[in-house]
Parts: sequence; structure tokens; C-alpha cells
Amino acid sequence: MIPENRKLDCIPVGRLAIDINTPTMRETFAESPSLRRYVGGSPANTAVGMAKLGMKVGFIGKISDDSLGDFAKSFFENLNIDTTHIFRAEKEVPIGLAFTETLNGKTNLMMYRSEGVADLQLQCSEIDEEYIASSRSVVISGTALSASPSRDACFKILELAKKNHCCIVFDIDYRGQVWKNADEISVYYTLAAKYADIIIGSYEEFSLMDHIIADNETDEQIADRWFSENAKIVIIKHGSEGSMAYTKDGERYKIDIAQVDAVKSTGGGDAYSSAFLSGLLMGRSIKESLELATVHAAIAVSQPSCSEAMVSLPELEEALIKAKEKSGELVTPF
Amino acid sequence: MIPENRKLDCIPVGRLAIDINTPTMRETFAESPSLRRYVGGSPANTAVGMAKLGMKVGFIGKISDDSLGDFAKSFFENLNIDTTHIFRAEKEVPIGLAFTETLNGKTNLMMYRSEGVADLQLQCSEIDEEYIASSRSVVISGTALSASPSRDACFKILELAKKNHCCIVFDIDYRGQVWKNADEISVYYTLAAKYADIIIGSYEEFSLMDHIIADNETDEQIADRWFSENAKIVIIKHGSEGSMAYTKDGERYKIDIAQVDAVKSTGGGDAYSSAFLSGLLMGRSIKESLELATVHAAIAVSQPSCSEAMVSLPELEEALIKAKEKSGELVTPF
Amino acid sequence: MIPENRKLDCIPVGRLAIDINTPTMRETFAESPSLRRYVGGSPANTAVGMAKLGMKVGFIGKISDDSLGDFAKSFFENLNIDTTHIFRAEKEVPIGLAFTETLNGKTNLMMYRSEGVADLQLQCSEIDEEYIASSRSVVISGTALSASPSRDACFKILELAKKNHCCIVFDIDYRGQVWKNADEISVYYTLAAKYADIIIGSYEEFSLMDHIIADNETDEQIADRWFSENAKIVIIKHGSEGSMAYTKDGERYKIDIAQVDAVKSTGGGDAYSSAFLSGLLMGRSIKESLELATVHAAIAVSQPSCSEAMVSLPELEEALIKAKEKSGELVTPF
Amino acid sequence: MIPENRKLDCIPVGRLAIDINTPTMRETFAESPSLRRYVGGSPANTAVGMAKLGMKVGFIGKISDDSLGDFAKSFFENLNIDTTHIFRAEKEVPIGLAFTETLNGKTNLMMYRSEGVADLQLQCSEIDEEYIASSRSVVISGTALSASPSRDACFKILELAKKNHCCIVFDIDYRGQVWKNADEISVYYTLAAKYADIIIGSYEEFSLMDHIIADNETDEQIADRWFSENAKIVIIKHGSEGSMAYTKDGERYKIDIAQVDAVKSTGGGDAYSSAFLSGLLMGRSIKESLELATVHAAIAVSQPSCSEAMVSLPELEEALIKAKEKSGELVTPF
Repeated sequence: MIPENRKLDCIPVGRLAIDINTPTMRETFAESPSLRRYVGGSPANTAVGMAKLGMKVGFIGKISDDSLGDFAKSFFENLNIDTTHIFRAEKEVPIGLAFTETLNGKTNLMMYRSEGVADLQLQCSEIDEEYIASSRSVVISGTALSASPSRDACFKILELAKKNHCCIVFDIDYRGQVWKNADEISVYYTLAAKYADIIIGSYEEFSLMDHIIADNETDEQIADRWFSENAKIVIIKHGSEGSMAYTKDGERYKIDIAQVDAVKSTGGGDAYSSAFLSGLLMGRSIKESLELATVHAAIAVSQPSCSEAMVSLPELEEALIKAKEKSGELVTPF
Repeated sequence: MIPENRKLDCIPVGRLAIDINTPTMRETFAESPSLRRYVGGSPANTAVGMAKLGMKVGFIGKISDDSLGDFAKSFFENLNIDTTHIFRAEKEVPIGLAFTETLNGKTNLMMYRSEGVADLQLQCSEIDEEYIASSRSVVISGTALSASPSRDACFKILELAKKNHCCIVFDIDYRGQVWKNADEISVYYTLAAKYADIIIGSYEEFSLMDHIIADNETDEQIADRWFSENAKIVIIKHGSEGSMAYTKDGERYKIDIAQVDAVKSTGGGDAYSSAFLSGLLMGRSIKESLELATVHAAIAVSQPSCSEAMVSLPELEEALIKAKEKSGELVTPF
Repeated sequence: MIPENRKLDCIPVGRLAIDINTPTMRETFAESPSLRRYVGGSPANTAVGMAKLGMKVGFIGKISDDSLGDFAKSFFENLNIDTTHIFRAEKEVPIGLAFTETLNGKTNLMMYRSEGVADLQLQCSEIDEEYIASSRSVVISGTALSASPSRDACFKILELAKKNHCCIVFDIDYRGQVWKNADEISVYYTLAAKYADIIIGSYEEFSLMDHIIADNETDEQIADRWFSENAKIVIIKHGSEGSMAYTKDGERYKIDIAQVDAVKSTGGGDAYSSAFLSGLLMGRSIKESLELATVHAAIAVSQPSCSEAMVSLPELEEALIKAKEKSGELVTPF
Repeated sequence: MIPENRKLDCIPVGRLAIDINTPTMRETFAESPSLRRYVGGSPANTAVGMAKLGMKVGFIGKISDDSLGDFAKSFFENLNIDTTHIFRAEKEVPIGLAFTETLNGKTNLMMYRSEGVADLQLQCSEIDEEYIASSRSVVISGTALSASPSRDACFKILELAKKNHCCIVFDIDYRGQVWKNADEISVYYTLAAKYADIIIGSYEEFSLMDHIIADNETDEQIADRWFSENAKIVIIKHGSEGSMAYTKDGERYKIDIAQVDAVKSTGGGDAYSSAFLSGLLMGRSIKESLELATVHAAIAVSQPSCSEAMVSLPELEEALIKAKEKSGELVTPF
């Protein structure tokens, strides 16, 4: 499923943006004259996580042609992420922004983006077959499908990734604000998921994807339908109850949440994906990769930032040992 | 491939519009103070052709809420085409128009449409699974894929048609004016063609569809690639040199053009599709259906209008006998 | 108020479009397979009317770059209207269309236009001070103010016409379909009318223009307000009850409708404006110019076309003599 | 020129937004993980300045329906600015943002706005004549004219302010990013300036406004042209060389820049306007009002924030005394 010996291990595709948070994530925007800025965006966080875990990571995306874009690019360069296929939008096109505060005890995320935002301006003409062919895997996350021309570019990437036998990962990553209606989501998620070798999403995200043709499916029904397309691994998350992993060969795992003192509800998914994919790319078993994933997610939600919460492989492995000491096995075949 | 015994034989989807031509199609717009108006649009012509050949035909589309829309709808009703799923656009949204004249000896087609035109306003929310399930086949033509929300609605139709085992026909019908760039065309044509049981297009249209992943393919290579998806019949047209039909089972046919005194270069494709599909739906062999198709196309290009050139089954069969008497076999297996 | 001895007598500005009517204007679009095409658009009709009456006429506008645009331009050229400042829109931008039929005894006008239509694409950069300075008068009609960039270009023309002492005519010509809300109409009509030496409109149009700051005004109140800006002549039309003309110097005229067998309700306004302005430009008195105006309007509504109904000065004068013989004085000072 | 005894002294109109700056304004965005947030937008800064100087201030504008909008509104409420006519945009419409850093020794301002931004969504239907009539003055700043529907709403405000004898102030405040071309700027600035009793702008801004009809004018020519419209006071700024004030009655003043250690180049204009208008509204002479203006501007550019740099009247008067002790007279009639 995953080719060996290519220049890059993985190319995440899509949103590379700026997160602006209140400093400790325990106060509101109005309460805090001071703020913190981080690099953000789901595929960007995945790229950062994988790079910190030692993978050779590239990226396909588009940023603003200003100092905010400069910051995002230099942050990637400092982590040795390949930025040769991160394009600059036209003047005055803004980079995506997300403001996060804690309001009445809850994480309050304000997405500052629109159809005009830089990441959604990625063009088909910017997609280079050679670059895709140089990577063992690509990760498409759902937001990049929300509007053209980025949507069109993603399907071009999927077609070229399939032609060049890259492992295709679809990380559903649903953000309600960017879509026009539920059918539109279902249509384009379905079209993308048909290409994928690995599909990762919450139960709600799978239900949203399938709602045109199915209702109230079990995890097994969901997994089986995608196995009848191209999928080999399907991971379905159930929030605080953990997640379930299925393989086309018939393996099944229940993955528990690693206990943690969470400061926010975001970023866990990207940490999960980056550790799981890094595990597979390093040649670890599915079970081992899932262990790394759930512990990485726990680390990410305990920190105010997403991208800056990611850790190195030795740190992650040490955290995994501690988590098992504390809670026993995290991943159980059934 | 085609289910039996449903309420409708076929539901074409998409553009239902008005054609405005110079009276004999031998003069320009500036030369002729008088004009003729017809119902037009590729899937509308296909619907008309199939209805005249005796099929039970429905339609999914959207027209203007004015007298031009009224005319289009009443023209369909007079042919017993089911219009229950032809929706009205909001006030001031125009129906598509095409002006055709003869300029310097050539057919000059002026498409008066834009992203705002009624047929491209078809919404996902207007797509009804029960209606699709009531038909033996659906026909998607390329123009309906050129812009959202019509594009989104087409993919919803394709997903529901597949779920309900309708025979899915993709009639590529490329119109350059409505697309933004060649990659966009390739991306969405490819996504639609993957669903299709029958794909009909010119060699140029197939090349346009495949250009992201292939170049200079032979007819056989094109057909084989689509047989590796869902296609069972692939028809590739070569202009004045006739067309080639391939089946997944290995049948192959060369179809000659029936000789005719053409007055225009448009409308032949819709006549071809409507007769070929009607033949298959009537239970005729592929060879017999192709004979009807090529003769129907010849009739259509010899008349100023497309929709009004379509004929009844007895007329078409008589024309086929005459064409064979004149030119010998039109369809040759090889 | 009107400068003498310039190269052109008048430059109407704005919509140059195509009218497509049923042949006798006594049948619907669905009833009539045959149609007639004419040049149309309010300022285009005004240009045609003035040219036929012997004026030296120019035009500032934008048409489609296709055969429909060619027809519009050649029609103007045949009338010796200067077309050097009629620009071509980009490929695929349509010329404005208006379909007219008679439905249930009433004229039914379907405007086929949108923000993307050629006439609304007129750009500030296309406006040439020298051309404006070469004309004794300019006519702005309301539709050209309905959307940018045409709106912006009109205000540039008004500013340059004022600087160069052209007589500025504002022909309100309200078309509901092209505006977003009543306040937007009032705002931009008011801004334009402040520049005008002559304002012509129906009572409803003046009320629409003034509704932000005034309600239920009398004709005298309306005229006085505009005299406190730049206006010298204000003409207020009251449909079948005729029209009222006021001058800043205190002249007042009641103008009766010339009796006629009308086939449609459109085109009379353009004929009225073209004859009234031609009269003034020829040096006729206001009373004489109003007589020509009301008779010209009567001729226009008795014909299926607007532009082709316009007559020569001898024909108009003969019609005026006949109208007076039949009905007595048409214009009465009071 | 300014009516007495109304409920409010002034209603600024337009942009109420968020400024996000590096903490000391001496580092770049990439250098500083920590940021500071302030309320911003030119008319918002003017409102804050006038409120701190003791004026009764209202506001007409539109903000996002989220925590950033909440912060902006509560900041105004804490200063007793009336917020009853600050509207909320629809969900997902962002409030305007401006990021400011110091890059290579220069203030680098990144405007994060687009046609979709909340402040440009102000609608004509939200403009209430009674509210305008309750204020002695209104301030329109240029950015609110850059796009509809905000542009349309501004002209409605201007028409109603004129009808109700409010003092109309036009603060040109040009921001290049929000306009499409130079003629569009000139057209709409000119239309707005014609209503104004007081016009304040830089020489470059006046030149931009007038460029369709004039070039290379002197300050006197500029002032005289606007005195021939409705203006009574015209203030023309010349950057580091100070500013010039002219009245229709023939007064003329040269105003020097108060010496200061500037940390940024923005915010001085809003401080200037707010103090000058407050002076006039308090009944101070033009000369005294100009003294307050230039000292207030000096204070604003010496602080990282604009809105938070504004001072109270006693502080401003003390600063004026000190500035005069240091530099002598700041305002000289000539």
C-alpha cells in the first residue's frame, strides 16, 4: 500500500494558516489585551507533527504574499519541511486566520476565512506530477475540497497520486463554516474518499459524507462500503469514547483516549493523524501506529497551540510508555 | 446493464434552453430581420429525440420563470415528456439562449449563458431519489458539470442513480465557453465518467477528459481505461470519418456517417445519442442501435433546428432502409 | 444652456442592445415560431431618433464582441451615428437582450441582462474628455447607473461634461429588474440628477428618486427642488394624462398625448426625448420642441419596434400638423 | 455651520475593526510570538478620540457577530459611545483586521479585509433619519465609500444629514487596497465631498480626488473649488511639513507638526480630526481647534496603539502648553 524509497515520506495538501489564541487559552479575547500567534491549519499541523517525528515532509498549499505568509513559510523551513510547492497568492489575498479563546469554559474557535482566502486559491496549473510522484504518500484534508479552485486542484492531485501509486490518505476534517449545504459536502467528500487508501474521520464526519445514500450505519457498514471502493484502512473516531480502526484484511482495533488535562478541544485530530501515518511510514504495525496516534493526540490537547505542541519521536515514545504504565493497553484488537 | 419495467425509460439531466436561428440557416443575424425560435440544449434535444422515438422520457432541469421558460415547458408537455422535475429559477434569472447563423459559409453559434443561467442553478435539494429510481436510465451531459450548484446536483444524481441501479450515460458534450481551464474540465469529466455505464464523446472530448493522466491514446486505450472503471460501452466519434463503438465484452464496431446535405454542424450528436439509447432501451442489439443513431444524426444536421428535426421511429427506420440502399452497411464489426 | 458649434449635437450614453419581438406584437412567444430582431436600449433608441431627425449623434457604450454586437454597430453606422466610442466587451460577455410579446392583451417585456451584460461593463478608463468636449449635449439614462463599472463611468462623464459646459440631460428611464433596492436607486439617481440641466421622467420615477428625503410632492415641488440644484428644465410625465414641463425661468406647459392606435407601451419615452432634445438643439422654442416630442412618442407606440419606428423631421412635422388638425393644440402654457 | 443643542455631538460612520500589532511596534510578526489587540478603524479612532475629549459620540457601522465584534462593542460602551446603531453582520462575515509590525525600520500595515468584510456590509435599510437628526455632526471617512452596500448607505446618510442641517465632515482617509482604480476613487470621493462642510485630507488625497478634472493644483485652488461647492473649512496636510487650513470666509492657517518621538506612522490623522472637531463643537476658535489637533496627532504617533493613545481634554491641554513652551506657536495665520 505504501511505496518505499521515495524522496519524501508525505505531502499534506491544503490549509497553511495562522492561529491567534489567548495566551493561556483560559480567557476570552476581550479579557486579554495580549495574544499569541502560531502556525495552524489541519494539514499544516499534520506536516509539522510528521516532521517533528522525523519524517521527510513536503507540502502543497498557498499562502498570502505578506509578513504573515512569510512567518508561516519560515516556520516550516525551520522544521525542514520542503516549501518548494507552497505558492503565494496575489496581493491583498489574505492568509487564513483562526482566533481561539475560552468563552464560558468552552473553546471558542472563530474561523476568519472566506472563498477568497489564500489556501482556497490553489490552482490546477500549480500541481506538478513530478512532485507528487516523489512522495510515498499524500494527505488531503476536507477543507481543501470546500471551494474551487482548491477543490479542482485536490482532484487533480488525487488523480496523479493514484497514477503514481502514492498512498492516498483522506483526513475528513470537517469545518462547517466553509460549505454551502450538506449535500455539497457529501458529494465532494464521497468523490475524494473513493480515491483513498486510508480514510480517517469522526463518526459524525463519515455520516455527513454518506448521508445522500445511507443513514444510521454501524462502524462496520461504513468500513465495508469504503473497502468496496479503494480503502484498505478506515479509522472512525468517537470523541471521548476513543476510536475504532478497521482494515480490509479484517483486522479491528479499539483505541482508548490517553488520559490528559486538556486545555482545548482542537488539534488532537491532526496529532493523531501525524503519528499514525508516521508510524506506518516507519514500518511499525498498525497497532503500534495507533498507540503513537492516541498518545500524540493527548499531548496536543494539553497545550494552547496545535502546531507547537507536536513532539519528537523519543518524547512520543516516552509518553507512550508512561501512558501504558498509567492506564494499561491503549489499543485492543477484537 | 439496463433495468426493465420502470415508469420511465430515461431521464436526461441539464440544459433546457432556447435556440434562436436565422430562418434558413444560410444568412447572418445582421442580414435577417426575421428569426426562428426552437427549444434547445443538448440533453433537451436528447429528450425530444427519445420521446419522438416512443420512449417514456422525464427530465431534471431548471428554466426561467417567464414566457421563454413557459414555451420550453409547453413544448416538452406536447411531446409527453414528464416535466414534474423541471424547476423554475428565481425571478430575473434567464434561461440559456443560443443564437445560430451562417457566417462566411460556417455555422456560427453564440452561446448566451453565464454562471447565472437557469440550467446551472439546479440545486442538490431539488434532486429526488424516488424520481431517479423510477427510470431505467439517466443521461448526464457535460455542460451541467461546468459550474456549481448544477455540478453538485449532477454528482448527487450520479450517486443516487448508481445506488438504484439505473443505467448511467455520460454524453460528454463539451462547450468551451462555460469552463475556466482545461484541468477543471478533465477533473470533473473524469469524476463523472467513472460512474458511467455508457460513455459517448468525440475523440477530442475523450482526450480533453484524460489529459491530466494520458496523452495521444488510441481508441482502444481510451476504451480499456474506462472499462477498468464502470463502463460497459464506449463510443468515440471521429467527425466526418464516423465513429467507433467498443463494449467491455470485446465487441467493436466502425460506424460510417450517413450521407446527407448538411445545413449546420450542430445537433447531430444529440440525435445520435437519442436514437442509440432508444435502440438499447427497446431491446435492439448494439449494432442495430448504432445504425439508428448514425441515420438520426444525418437527419438532424440537414435541418435548421435540432429539436424539431427529430423524427418518429417509423420515419427513422424508413430513412435507415434508404441509407443502406444508397450506401450499403453503415455499421461494421471488426 | 446649450453650447453652439461643436462637432456633435448629442452623445447618449449607456445601453445599446437587441430587442427580439413577436412579429406583430399581438401574439406570445410560444404562439409565434417566427420572431423579429431590432436594435434597442433606451439611449440607443434616443440616438436613432435624433439621427433620423437630422442631428449629428455620437454614442458612448459597450457591446458584445460577436455577430449581435456587429449588427447593433452596423445599424448605427447606417444612420451615420458616430461609433468610435462604442467599445467591445470581452469574449463571452453578452449584449443585452429584451424579449417582447403580447400576453393576455398586455405588453410583456422580459429583460435578459445581468450585472455581467456588455453595456454595464463600460469602464472609467474608456471615457475620453476630448470626445465629451466635442458634443453640445450628453444624455445619461438611468439604467447605466444601476451597476459598476458603468455607474462609475457615468459619473466620470457627468464630471467631464460639466467641466466642458455640455448640456447634461438625465433621462430617468427606470427599469426595476436591474436594481437591488429602492434606496440604492434613490441615492444614485439623486447624485446624477444634481448634475443635470434637463431632467425627464415620469412622476413615479421622480418619486422613486426623491423618496429618501421627500414624499407625495407636487410637480411644482419636484421641479423647484431640482431648480435649486443645476436643472433649468424639468419634464414630468403622467402616463395617459400627458406630461408637464417646467423651466427655471418660470415657464410651464401642459402637454397632451397625441391620439394613436398603440400596439405596445414601450418606446414612447425614447421617441419623446429624442424629438424634444432635437428641437432644442435645432433652436426651436420649448413649446415647439414639446409638440414634436409628444407626436414622436405617439408614432413610436404605434409600431412593433422602437428604433425602427423613428421618423425623419419632415415626416414628424407632417404628423404634427395632422395631429393638431385632429385634436387642436397639444402643448398649453399655464 | 454647526447646530447647537442636539442629543449627540458627532456620529462617525464606517469602519470599526480590530488592530493586531507587535507589542512594542519595534519587531516583526515573525519575531514576536506575542501580539497586542486594539480597537481600530479610522472613524472608530475618531469616535474614541472625541469621546475621551468629552464629546457625546454615536456611531453608525457594522461588526462581526462573534467575540471580536463583542470586544469592539464593549470597548465603545466603556467609553460611553452610543452603540445603538452599530449593527451585526451575518454569521461568518468577518470584522476588519489590520496587522501592524515594524519591518526594516518601517511601519508595515497589512489590511485584512475584502468586499465581504462587516463594515462594508452596512445597508441603506439600516440608516435611520431620526438618529442622524439627533446629532450636531457626522463624519464620513473614505473607506466606507469603497464598496456597496456601504457606499450606498453613506450617500443616504449624506442626503439625510444635509436635509437635517447636520455639519458634514468628510475625512478622506485613503486606503489603496480597497479600491479598484483611480477613477473610481475620484468619482465617489468627489460625490461625497460635494456634500461636506468640512473636508480634511492630505495633499495626495485631494489630488487623487480631483484627478479627473484637475492636475497640479495649489492648496488655494483646491480650497476654492470646494468652497464653490458646500465646503466652509478645508484642511490640507503636507506630512512632516505640517498642514494648511482654509475657511470660506478667507481665514488661512499654517499648522506645524508638534515634535514627538514617533513609533509608527499611523493614527495621527484620526487624532487630528477628533481633536479639531471636538474643539469646534466645544465652541473653540478654528485656531485653537487646530492647536489641539496637531498636539493630539503627535501624541497618537508616539504610542503603539491608535485608539488607546487618545487622551482626555486636560491631558491634551497640558500637552499643548508643553508643546508651545518647547516650540513656540504651532498655528500661524497668514
